[in-house]
Amino acid sequence: MHNLRIDAERLWDSLMETARIGATAKGGIRRLTLSEEDKAVRDWFKAACEAIGCTVSWDDMGNMYAVYPGKHPDRLPIAMGSHLDTQPTGGKFDGVLGVLAGLEVLRTLHDAGYEPDTPLMLVNWTNEEGARYQPSMMGSAVYAGALTRERCYDQTDGDGVRFEDALEAIGYKGETPAGPETGAPGFAGMFELHIEQGPILEAEDRTIGVVTGIQGMRWYKVFLTGKENHAGTTPMHLRQDAMVGAARLTLAVNEIARSYEGRAVGTVGRIEIRPGSPNVVPGDVFFTVDFRSPDAAILDAMEAGFREVADAVTAEHGLGIDVQKVSDSPPVTFDGAAIDAVRASADSLGYSHREMLSGAGHDAGYAAYVAPTAMIFVPCKDGLSHNELEDATAAHCAAGANVLLQAVLARANAADAAPDTR
Amino acid sequence: MHNLRIDAERLWDSLMETARIGATAKGGIRRLTLSEEDKAVRDWFKAACEAIGCTVSWDDMGNMYAVYPGKHPDRLPIAMGSHLDTQPTGGKFDGVLGVLAGLEVLRTLHDAGYEPDTPLMLVNWTNEEGARYQPSMMGSAVYAGALTRERCYDQTDGDGVRFEDALEAIGYKGETPAGPETGAPGFAGMFELHIEQGPILEAEDRTIGVVTGIQGMRWYKVFLTGKENHAGTTPMHLRQDAMVGAARLTLAVNEIARSYEGRAVGTVGRIEIRPGSPNVVPGDVFFTVDFRSPDAAILDAMEAGFREVADAVTAEHGLGIDVQKVSDSPPVTFDGAAIDAVRASADSLGYSHREMLSGAGHDAGYAAYVAPTAMIFVPCKDGLSHNELEDATAAHCAAGANVLLQAVLARANAADAAPDTR
Repeated sequence: MHNLRIDAERLWDSLMETARIGATAKGGIRRLTLSEEDKAVRDWFKAACEAIGCTVSWDDMGNMYAVYPGKHPDRLPIAMGSHLDTQPTGGKFDGVLGVLAGLEVLRTLHDAGYEPDTPLMLVNWTNEEGARYQPSMMGSAVYAGALTRERCYDQTDGDGVRFEDALEAIGYKGETPAGPETGAPGFAGMFELHIEQGPILEAEDRTIGVVTGIQGMRWYKVFLTGKENHAGTTPMHLRQDAMVGAARLTLAVNEIARSYEGRAVGTVGRIEIRPGSPNVVPGDVFFTVDFRSPDAAILDAMEAGFREVADAVTAEHGLGIDVQKVSDSPPVTFDGAAIDAVRASADSLGYSHREMLSGAGHDAGYAAYVAPTAMIFVPCKDGLSHNELEDATAAHCAAGANVLLQAVLARANAADAAPDTR
Repeated sequence: MHNLRIDAERLWDSLMETARIGATAKGGIRRLTLSEEDKAVRDWFKAACEAIGCTVSWDDMGNMYAVYPGKHPDRLPIAMGSHLDTQPTGGKFDGVLGVLAGLEVLRTLHDAGYEPDTPLMLVNWTNEEGARYQPSMMGSAVYAGALTRERCYDQTDGDGVRFEDALEAIGYKGETPAGPETGAPGFAGMFELHIEQGPILEAEDRTIGVVTGIQGMRWYKVFLTGKENHAGTTPMHLRQDAMVGAARLTLAVNEIARSYEGRAVGTVGRIEIRPGSPNVVPGDVFFTVDFRSPDAAILDAMEAGFREVADAVTAEHGLGIDVQKVSDSPPVTFDGAAIDAVRASADSLGYSHREMLSGAGHDAGYAAYVAPTAMIFVPCKDGLSHNELEDATAAHCAAGANVLLQAVLARANAADAAPDTR
């Protein structure tokens, strides 16, 4: 079926139609995980998959599975997918493209009346973004056994709402435990299409990124405790100002990452201050740290460097500190055969391509714990992502979806497709 | 009536009774201006004043006036007062002591059947704290003509609620415009009792601070605009990270104030970050700056120094910046005769005392625009204020109230009491 092609216009229409769910004034999407908007897009996704003959289920993390039948129902499906949740001011493509391109692949097969040897499965992973509940990629992490559901369930959002309660409230807490060995659907391979979220493909005018792995990522929550007091009457040298400590540690994160420029990044993306009044010396500050590198040794060095500065700063300013490592995703190397399938598909379709590492974390990183996995990148405008102005062309989205189609079919029709022996 | 003394136990009971309105688990008060708790304490205040024969009214800023009759109703009253609103995690004494000690003074006169020559007036000024709506001391500032009511009315809190709407919602938007020339009650002098909110009286084991003035204060809102982008894929040298800019400016505020150690303070007390996600390079950060000094030239120098660093930092990091000066209270020197009345009262009562400047801003600073004014300080534990653990002894509260009583009577019975010629 090398002559099958997806319907570029239908894919674009799906992207624009779902972009209305949580649409922002600036053209982006605010569709936080487990929100009413997330529920609405999940309902849309379920109906769209069922309309083409898929069986849709979800597990106790809310991960949604749409299984498209194959000639050998006893074989483990080949999976596609990504996530439908967004950042608070997210764009229209991050995650959404991977799910809707998968849907477009299935619609294309359905229209052609084509039944692959092995069943296919389209997955919508829960809380990839980690904006409302930390850490990110919760759904795939629990599926892969890298996080416990209990820990995720007890996370609270800024309003104190527990993850489990929010999941139940939108009606997507299933009974089947997430995981390949627990009754939730398993898979023999996984492909995730995503926008690059970086500038390389656009700068080199290439259409497809053949993603060979994902850089490692560590997330920390840092709690600083000083002494709140009157901003007008407390002399500078007597202060225990938690915000001054947070400012110094923010600069430390920045400087540590810069010292590994090109091989690491570091970000303070969230900060909260208490009591948060202009005329009160801040007593408590909470902030997050995100360190990434493709090199585990650099991650170790960044963490050690941060802890060293934190000790010095808190001692100097008389602050208490609690550094909690909330996420530790080691660097991922994707499966050689899955990478080859992506490269071969791009070649056969005549798209320019290059190998690359993913700077961002993706559900495919956890899928790789379970089965042979690879990713497909397409360019995005100015490398911009996690931004309402995030953009990608219809032609690039279609190219990525066609590569996905061919890679998935190649694996689904391979002679060595895995039997479901669970 | 030099032998009149207030009832220390009744004063303490009033402090503890009203402390239940908005009480926090840690023993403080959360009674933000114009909240339901503020309404409750205003209702309590009105009833308590009416019970002793006062006429209670309020103006279009919600400032409340309880007038206690004197022998010459044609004379302008001598005023006492402070504020009943608190910080988000405030203590039981800041502001509240000044109002309830004034109430205790009036109760003492009422019990004794004593009628002063000149009427007395107890004032509860609106939004002294400036925690929910900026700037602070709104009620007295509008009264004194230092701020326009229109500007105050349009301020919004963190939830977008306008000041005017909140004032109407609690039923304390009066019809009379705030101000001595506009129909709201005027006064011929004003005394404000307050806890010191600093460590000096306690350290020197003195009971009374004879406050000769207030240091100047300037408040700024700073808006930094960078470019939000993916924290995993955006190289460090390509970032426009608004949080890194905010961290550098926070340290600049701290360093500038330290360079005038002993004569100035500087604080970043509030910060908000957008989009506020751990894996997004922050695109927007808002924070507040509070600079204070008794020396206007130092305030000028601090502001200039901050703007200079802000220009350099924003240029280096590719950030946009908007610095809004939201409040500018010049240093205040209190009236010599009013200061003498406080000192003479402390002397006559046998309390140890010293002259001092106020580090904090107070409504008395704006009252001084209108009529001869002074303040009385009493010690607070560890100099701690704007903190739920703020504390003062019943004996010190009573001492302050007795000094207030004698100072007010001295002015109310003075031969040169001013006729109300408005």
